[in-house]
Amino acid sequence: MSDGILFVSVVYSFVCNTLAIPNLLFMSKAIPSRSEDYSHWYNELVKKAGLAENSSTRGCMVIKPYGFAIWEKMQQLLDQMFKETGHENAYFPLLIPKSFLSREADHVEGFAKECAVVTHYRLRTDEKGAGVVVDPEARLEEELIVRPTSETVIWDTYKSWIQSYRDLPLLINQWGNVMRWEMRTRLFLRTSEFLWQEGHTAHATKEEAQNETRQMLDVYAKFVEHYMAVPVVKGVKTASERFAGAVDTFCIEAMMQDGKALQAGTSHFLGQNFAKAFDVKFVTKEGKEEFVWGTSWGVSTRLMGALIMAHSDDDGLVLPPKLAPIQVVIVPIYFKGEGLEKVMEVVKPILKSLKEEGISVKFDTRDTHKPGWKFAEYELKGVPVRLAIGPKDLKKGTVEVARRDTKEKYFQPIDSIVEHVAGLLEDIQDNIYSKAAAFKEEHTKGATSWEQFKELVEQGFVYAHWDGTPETEDKIKEETKATIRCIPLNQTKEEGRCIFSGKPSQGRVLFAKAY
Amino acid sequence: MSDGILFVSVVYSFVCNTLAIPNLLFMSKAIPSRSEDYSHWYNELVKKAGLAENSSTRGCMVIKPYGFAIWEKMQQLLDQMFKETGHENAYFPLLIPKSFLSREADHVEGFAKECAVVTHYRLRTDEKGAGVVVDPEARLEEELIVRPTSETVIWDTYKSWIQSYRDLPLLINQWGNVMRWEMRTRLFLRTSEFLWQEGHTAHATKEEAQNETRQMLDVYAKFVEHYMAVPVVKGVKTASERFAGAVDTFCIEAMMQDGKALQAGTSHFLGQNFAKAFDVKFVTKEGKEEFVWGTSWGVSTRLMGALIMAHSDDDGLVLPPKLAPIQVVIVPIYFKGEGLEKVMEVVKPILKSLKEEGISVKFDTRDTHKPGWKFAEYELKGVPVRLAIGPKDLKKGTVEVARRDTKEKYFQPIDSIVEHVAGLLEDIQDNIYSKAAAFKEEHTKGATSWEQFKELVEQGFVYAHWDGTPETEDKIKEETKATIRCIPLNQTKEEGRCIFSGKPSQGRVLFAKAY
Repeated sequence: MSDGILFVSVVYSFVCNTLAIPNLLFMSKAIPSRSEDYSHWYNELVKKAGLAENSSTRGCMVIKPYGFAIWEKMQQLLDQMFKETGHENAYFPLLIPKSFLSREADHVEGFAKECAVVTHYRLRTDEKGAGVVVDPEARLEEELIVRPTSETVIWDTYKSWIQSYRDLPLLINQWGNVMRWEMRTRLFLRTSEFLWQEGHTAHATKEEAQNETRQMLDVYAKFVEHYMAVPVVKGVKTASERFAGAVDTFCIEAMMQDGKALQAGTSHFLGQNFAKAFDVKFVTKEGKEEFVWGTSWGVSTRLMGALIMAHSDDDGLVLPPKLAPIQVVIVPIYFKGEGLEKVMEVVKPILKSLKEEGISVKFDTRDTHKPGWKFAEYELKGVPVRLAIGPKDLKKGTVEVARRDTKEKYFQPIDSIVEHVAGLLEDIQDNIYSKAAAFKEEHTKGATSWEQFKELVEQGFVYAHWDGTPETEDKIKEETKATIRCIPLNQTKEEGRCIFSGKPSQGRVLFAKAY
Repeated sequence: MSDGILFVSVVYSFVCNTLAIPNLLFMSKAIPSRSEDYSHWYNELVKKAGLAENSSTRGCMVIKPYGFAIWEKMQQLLDQMFKETGHENAYFPLLIPKSFLSREADHVEGFAKECAVVTHYRLRTDEKGAGVVVDPEARLEEELIVRPTSETVIWDTYKSWIQSYRDLPLLINQWGNVMRWEMRTRLFLRTSEFLWQEGHTAHATKEEAQNETRQMLDVYAKFVEHYMAVPVVKGVKTASERFAGAVDTFCIEAMMQDGKALQAGTSHFLGQNFAKAFDVKFVTKEGKEEFVWGTSWGVSTRLMGALIMAHSDDDGLVLPPKLAPIQVVIVPIYFKGEGLEKVMEVVKPILKSLKEEGISVKFDTRDTHKPGWKFAEYELKGVPVRLAIGPKDLKKGTVEVARRDTKEKYFQPIDSIVEHVAGLLEDIQDNIYSKAAAFKEEHTKGATSWEQFKELVEQGFVYAHWDGTPETEDKIKEETKATIRCIPLNQTKEEGRCIFSGKPSQGRVLFAKAY
């Protein structure tokens, strides 16, 4: 490295690493620390890392290119997993006749209060000069709601698609946008409009539908753990947390760095509820007419929130390599243009080899920003591996390697850099998962007394006995703001007394405060 | 082949090929012929080939799995082309504050009459027992419109993204759904909701924005010609056909089999119109403040309509291999289960090899349908290549190959089948394009008299002189229903007289009736 840059690099290391204070000197966009204000840290990180921002439409977000690139990777991987399990994509209308919602009693109860309603289909210029106004003559006979979820319109369609057992199973997924009007919104975590996928399947037997529900829960768990590097607890919701219209709702729950839970995906066994509501019957092999069995399952841009909150630190995002739009960034170190050409010569074959390995790499040759600024920028953006190469490195035949997850920096021979980086990306993926798993382990406790419960539930997940009644569930929520996240699938049968009521219980359930 | 099947096959060939009458005997779903009723043929084909159908929501369609699989292929290819030209994806809100629309005078004029309007954000249970009703207390202060296109909300966002020349160019694309209320709808061609992509770019100079507009027109033309196998005419719209808010609208126009034009994509040079409407300025290198230059460009699920109408025939879809979800189908010929195992043995390595070549192949072993039924089904679905293998073929070491485009059938040695199919798919792609190009050539004429014009414009594209006034354009439309599709980019300067008014003209423009 040239001396000027060496100086910058030393100061940078000093400021950022030795003293562990925010690297304001070189960062374009400082963010608050997690310990200071976790919630503020999250909001600022989302905006400053270029992931998303609030739009002029109340409660709706703009997903910025860098954020969208991560979501696209998630989509591609999930889509592949859905197809491998036999599902096909299709597309159903955005707008749903209002009356459809009322067909399933629980469903309307659950969604009516958060529906955006289309009442007119035309604007016109105001005669009194008030600009453009709703044309009162273009009122719809029946109002349309912007889909909050698509069970109703899809089951209405399935009625004509399903006649015989030969038409089953019907395994459909839809990628799209939905609206659930929210009064208090947070980027990715709770927005009035969000992007998601919703699977809707129809089956000839109860057992097959139940297997599908569990299969898709497993697909979600595998995706979140393997690609997002976030460990999850699989379980089933209590009646009060169930999807409106489902017989059973299964979920995966992830732990964020503040110890709170985030529901990362749900898979619903719908029984014959929607089949009955929309009169979807089929003729069995034996010639009998029966109602169809259904499932639905979904994950949304909320996963972006989970990804950010599970791994990131006070310097910015920490992205698992499998989801990072840029896996490796190469920053050339040169001084007033000198030496750039020589660096280029060496970097070009490295770029080519990395790309051939399927590694996405960016070579940032901009002369409008100094290396120190770039270092901070790519830390903020969570790029897993940074390589820095300057004239001094060339002489020594080495590259400076910095990994985002542990902040380690070291020199590596240029000759073996491609091989090294490929292995390093795998290491980082594993390490990020292990770190999150250790954190979850550490912040998951069992409680045996109410006092202990109240204390522990402020810090993380708590397994405790519950008497099985919604009344107790409500009271615990009132007093602690903690909810039953799920009855874990791996629950062991164990005699005990409810943490709150002291009544008998057969096993522990998972409590936590939640997003 | 076993005798039973041989019989079926002979009858099938006899009925379908020799007499050229609809193969009702074996087809699950017959469609009308093009000559009988082109419009009816299209509608029935779309439904029966499993592409799309009308939904219970007026004017909105359901895109069925097979149709969506084609659209997905289109999306992937286009997305790649956009990324190769430097664009990134992002996502902006579905709902737009009503007042945004009024900011650009032409824009509101163009879209106000077809906007779905959200006025309320909640439903409630009716006290009088009328089910669920709009909650009058949940009226929005400002109505929101479902985006008919996103220039307004995007330029509102760009205001905060763009400060200096360093922030330019801004090259963004969005995939999503839009609503334009339509009174008369047709599947894929004109629906109230449709899926599309909309590119929105911002530039420092007029020239750069103009180049972008033309570059994206070229991308569209390349996509439609190379992948969809549909030849297009590139041109610029007249003022009356211009996008509401654009300075110039460029388009590609394709010819359908009834001689009508279909606008397959548009690319707009927006000048500084939206920058001025939303006050988007930037500081130049020289420190001056200037308005930004903009473009927008889009293609939609309308392309599905073009694809279907350009190539298909009276037996069903004809899909170009590059967009076919299933490129090759293998149908085993066996009789009452006998021989299937031996066929399987031979087919398995063929399947593997085809997949290794990147060819998507389906092996249809269903025993619920006879080979003849399957043949008709895959013809209806436009699968480019069908292979049939029975015990007799095994003895001879051959496979029966049928190509969908020409309906040719012949035997091919099993040993070379993979290589043969790979080449055949390329041939089919080329042949489909050549056929469409020849048809377009044949149905494109020049007119020199009004009488001749009126006659020719019933049959296809007509190049004719026009005096350049919107009045003449309107009158020609009134009398013939033909419109100026575009002023072709390759127009040659040529002195002439307007076909209608006889006034002087400098070159011919393209007239046609259009979808």
